[in-house]
Amino acid sequence: MPYTLGLDYGTNSARALIVRCRDGKELASCVMPYPSGTQGVLLSSDDDLLARQHPGDYLTTLEETVRGALAKAAADADFSPDKIIGIGVDSTGSSPLPVKADNSALGCDPAHRDNLNAQCWLWKDHTSHAEAAKITELGRKHRPQYLAKCGNTYSSEWWWSKIWHCLNVDPETFAQAYSWVELADWVPSQLAGVDKPENIRRGVCAAGHKAFYAEDWGGLPDEDFLKMLAPEIAALRERLYDKAYDASHTAGTLCEAWAKRLGLRTGIPIAIGEMDVHYGAIGCGVSEGALVKVIGTSTCDCTVVSADKDVADIPGICGIVQGAILPGYYGIEAGQSAVGDLFKWWVEGVCGGDGSLHAELTAEASRLRPGQSGLLALDWNNGNRTVLVDQRLSGLIIGQTLHTTRAEIYRALIEATAYGARMILERIAEYGVPVERIICAGGIAEKNTMLMQIYADVTGRTIQVSRSDQSCALGSAVAAAVVAGPEAGGYADFAAAEAAMTGLKPVAYEPDPRAHAVYDQLFKLYQKIHDAFGGVSTEALGHVMKDLMCLKEDSRRA
Amino acid sequence: MPYTLGLDYGTNSARALIVRCRDGKELASCVMPYPSGTQGVLLSSDDDLLARQHPGDYLTTLEETVRGALAKAAADADFSPDKIIGIGVDSTGSSPLPVKADNSALGCDPAHRDNLNAQCWLWKDHTSHAEAAKITELGRKHRPQYLAKCGNTYSSEWWWSKIWHCLNVDPETFAQAYSWVELADWVPSQLAGVDKPENIRRGVCAAGHKAFYAEDWGGLPDEDFLKMLAPEIAALRERLYDKAYDASHTAGTLCEAWAKRLGLRTGIPIAIGEMDVHYGAIGCGVSEGALVKVIGTSTCDCTVVSADKDVADIPGICGIVQGAILPGYYGIEAGQSAVGDLFKWWVEGVCGGDGSLHAELTAEASRLRPGQSGLLALDWNNGNRTVLVDQRLSGLIIGQTLHTTRAEIYRALIEATAYGARMILERIAEYGVPVERIICAGGIAEKNTMLMQIYADVTGRTIQVSRSDQSCALGSAVAAAVVAGPEAGGYADFAAAEAAMTGLKPVAYEPDPRAHAVYDQLFKLYQKIHDAFGGVSTEALGHVMKDLMCLKEDSRRA
Repeated sequence: MPYTLGLDYGTNSARALIVRCRDGKELASCVMPYPSGTQGVLLSSDDDLLARQHPGDYLTTLEETVRGALAKAAADADFSPDKIIGIGVDSTGSSPLPVKADNSALGCDPAHRDNLNAQCWLWKDHTSHAEAAKITELGRKHRPQYLAKCGNTYSSEWWWSKIWHCLNVDPETFAQAYSWVELADWVPSQLAGVDKPENIRRGVCAAGHKAFYAEDWGGLPDEDFLKMLAPEIAALRERLYDKAYDASHTAGTLCEAWAKRLGLRTGIPIAIGEMDVHYGAIGCGVSEGALVKVIGTSTCDCTVVSADKDVADIPGICGIVQGAILPGYYGIEAGQSAVGDLFKWWVEGVCGGDGSLHAELTAEASRLRPGQSGLLALDWNNGNRTVLVDQRLSGLIIGQTLHTTRAEIYRALIEATAYGARMILERIAEYGVPVERIICAGGIAEKNTMLMQIYADVTGRTIQVSRSDQSCALGSAVAAAVVAGPEAGGYADFAAAEAAMTGLKPVAYEPDPRAHAVYDQLFKLYQKIHDAFGGVSTEALGHVMKDLMCLKEDSRRA
Repeated sequence: MPYTLGLDYGTNSARALIVRCRDGKELASCVMPYPSGTQGVLLSSDDDLLARQHPGDYLTTLEETVRGALAKAAADADFSPDKIIGIGVDSTGSSPLPVKADNSALGCDPAHRDNLNAQCWLWKDHTSHAEAAKITELGRKHRPQYLAKCGNTYSSEWWWSKIWHCLNVDPETFAQAYSWVELADWVPSQLAGVDKPENIRRGVCAAGHKAFYAEDWGGLPDEDFLKMLAPEIAALRERLYDKAYDASHTAGTLCEAWAKRLGLRTGIPIAIGEMDVHYGAIGCGVSEGALVKVIGTSTCDCTVVSADKDVADIPGICGIVQGAILPGYYGIEAGQSAVGDLFKWWVEGVCGGDGSLHAELTAEASRLRPGQSGLLALDWNNGNRTVLVDQRLSGLIIGQTLHTTRAEIYRALIEATAYGARMILERIAEYGVPVERIICAGGIAEKNTMLMQIYADVTGRTIQVSRSDQSCALGSAVAAAVVAGPEAGGYADFAAAEAAMTGLKPVAYEPDPRAHAVYDQLFKLYQKIHDAFGGVSTEALGHVMKDLMCLKEDSRRA
């Protein structure tokens, strides 16, 4: 009875999950918060935009979570560690870290332990916004084909922005880095005992979405383009990689040292690393026509389209990358920069409450009808990832009176994230990628039924919930079963593995036609504000507050 | 040693003040909350916009506050009630109430005690917005001269909107009303024992600012115009008035019945009624070049220009009325619909705090530099009174991140009211009414030094504070001293009475040039948002969030 191991590196903690290959049964899991920083994130009192992570934390939690999961799994008489036939790894991204020539993390070097620039640059680090703008400018002018695959705007969250920013603000640290690696690639490379950065097998997922990688133009951006950033960046190119791989490939096999540390068999295959939401999409059973939305601090949306189809570039969609999720399909990734974080900001940061206030506001907000509060918000407190791809946007709340309550604002923020979600659906549909149903995953999707119903009502789509509450780790375990292959007790392809190992919860949220009709009107107003403050339009806005007041009055009569 | 009595009818309470004529010494005062409703205001659970007051409360508090003040004044050996030589009355406005043929309040009739439409329609009742819009439309088309004097837009807070709305929603109550009277006129008429509405001496202050009254066109709007509203409104005209009076006139003399109830001399003169902020301006020592700003739940701004000058109509300024404040001067009134109410909404309504949270947030907000929060707000949670004159506008907050604090938003709301104040100053300066200094009054002006400094920094003007903390009642007492005249121990004119009876506190707030320079930039952004959502412009707004972020970064370097 074979099992696989899925490892998931989130924003605040790491997770190990042991899954039974036959039916996806989640035998045991173990979660551990990263020991360093504030909730696992290294912050700077000087700069709100900075977010780093200590790479040593990844190794500490790797050992602890795997050993923890194995210890729990031991309770099952059928299980033993040698029945684990493969490992899959996912992580946040783009989260690049500088490494030394032996592939060890520069941030783990005692000389750099307190150097924030030598640590892993977490996905939500936005210090590189000036570099991102410059890369966008250079790309538009000189390499439009690069930008076309990532929504025509390069983000401060991404690989080249961050590495270049490191060079600009701390050339000494940059010079100490032999190479740079995405976290999703670095953890598999450690497990495989890779001791030269040149030998790391990089995933096409992060490479294609975040680093302008595509086979069309021979891999990473050409040297001439990188020289426009800086000669040092161009020089780095040869210590990076020429080829990146999809999830039909392994990143290597488990080395003896790590096999010992973890108590697993040496030599089992390690799937190529993908970003968390991509393996999460697989853990939710992604397929054509179904969009997976992982709702956490932020939101990532993933869907797939057969690589046989002619998928156009989609403006504002951060990535359309062949093989990024499933081999043989274009992976389409989009997302919203703040979702759970936005609600947390309101309830904890502003209202000064805790979990019980979340529950109280949810109860109160549930009693409101669409339009009743007269409020409209933009979900941009952490910038906009899709479809504007602009980190220097910020939040907006409109329509408040002297009677507006905190619960009304709470609901308006939830609705704002739903409108943001709909913007993405409308954009990809416009370019030939229709979405019939949405499969959600993440704690909020499981707990907040009000939010789920609002998402159904705003988007007009059926909303389903992934059976697993650890879809990312499950998706990694599915990938592990595929690289292990049928001869070892795994699967020949992802279709078979997904069918056997993933599923949905019995609940589904269907759009209410009356609520949907009101939200159609509110969404039109959202689009106006979105386009005005996003710099897309100069339409008249004088009607917006009036329209909101009319909708408020209508909702009273409803 | 003569004294006068000033009576002030505010939004939540009534006040009586006994003032020594020689030097303005405030001998004794007594405040009493209105007994009915929520903090003195009758509300409706069905309609946020409704705000009424029970007229019986005015009579109850009249007797109680005057007797209370007299009792306190008795401690002064020099004082006796017969030394009171005159009475002045101010009130909120436009606050019209329906009266019966004997000048008693319809709302006091037991048959109408629970009828909200029979009560006094408090200034902040906005149920009449549809009527206001229609009056604006009719006025623009048929009587532009009427609208020119009140900012080209008629408000839902005003006389004709309210009376017409009563007819539209409750014709039976309308039919029961023999006439309608402004509260500022009704209280003096009760004191004078006027038993026919036709005999009430109405003040030009409320008439000119709120009811389209002007001598230029022979008083109230002509019958043909009122017929366009409704025949019933036109028919009401003859039970209203043809002439209204400035503060050089009396509303009558104290009748025997009220003299007995209050314990005062029969026959002492009662000054014509003015709205609270107008007599408040006098209590603060208003003069040409000095603008008086009474900061309370909302804000009223008043200044004067000699009637010899040719004052143009000023778009968006709700009133330019000869004699409305001082005889011989145009009175100019402007205002902001929510100031103290806006802070209260945030601290109490949203953050769920009390007075101590106000203090805590003020302390925290004081440490912020201009621009540091990256926030910008519109002060429209209760609509916009000046210069847009549009009650159907609402609030807006922009620029928030996931790190934005409640104290930052608190400060942004204070700044928003300062920008609103500056909009008024810039508009009247543009039309030839420059303001060199601002004299503030009201509790906030005395207590919140942070707010006062922000106002100085945003407006670039010296901000002074009225010596009296009950300027409205003091102004009423000044008017009483003028109508009593020098022969009784009062004064021959307002200039002499103001000079003797009013003054400033020693403190003054001077603009800080560096803060003013930053606020100049923020004010430009405020104007953009103001004009966009106010329906005035269709300029591009895509730069707004970016500019705020730049100012935030600049403030870090400052």
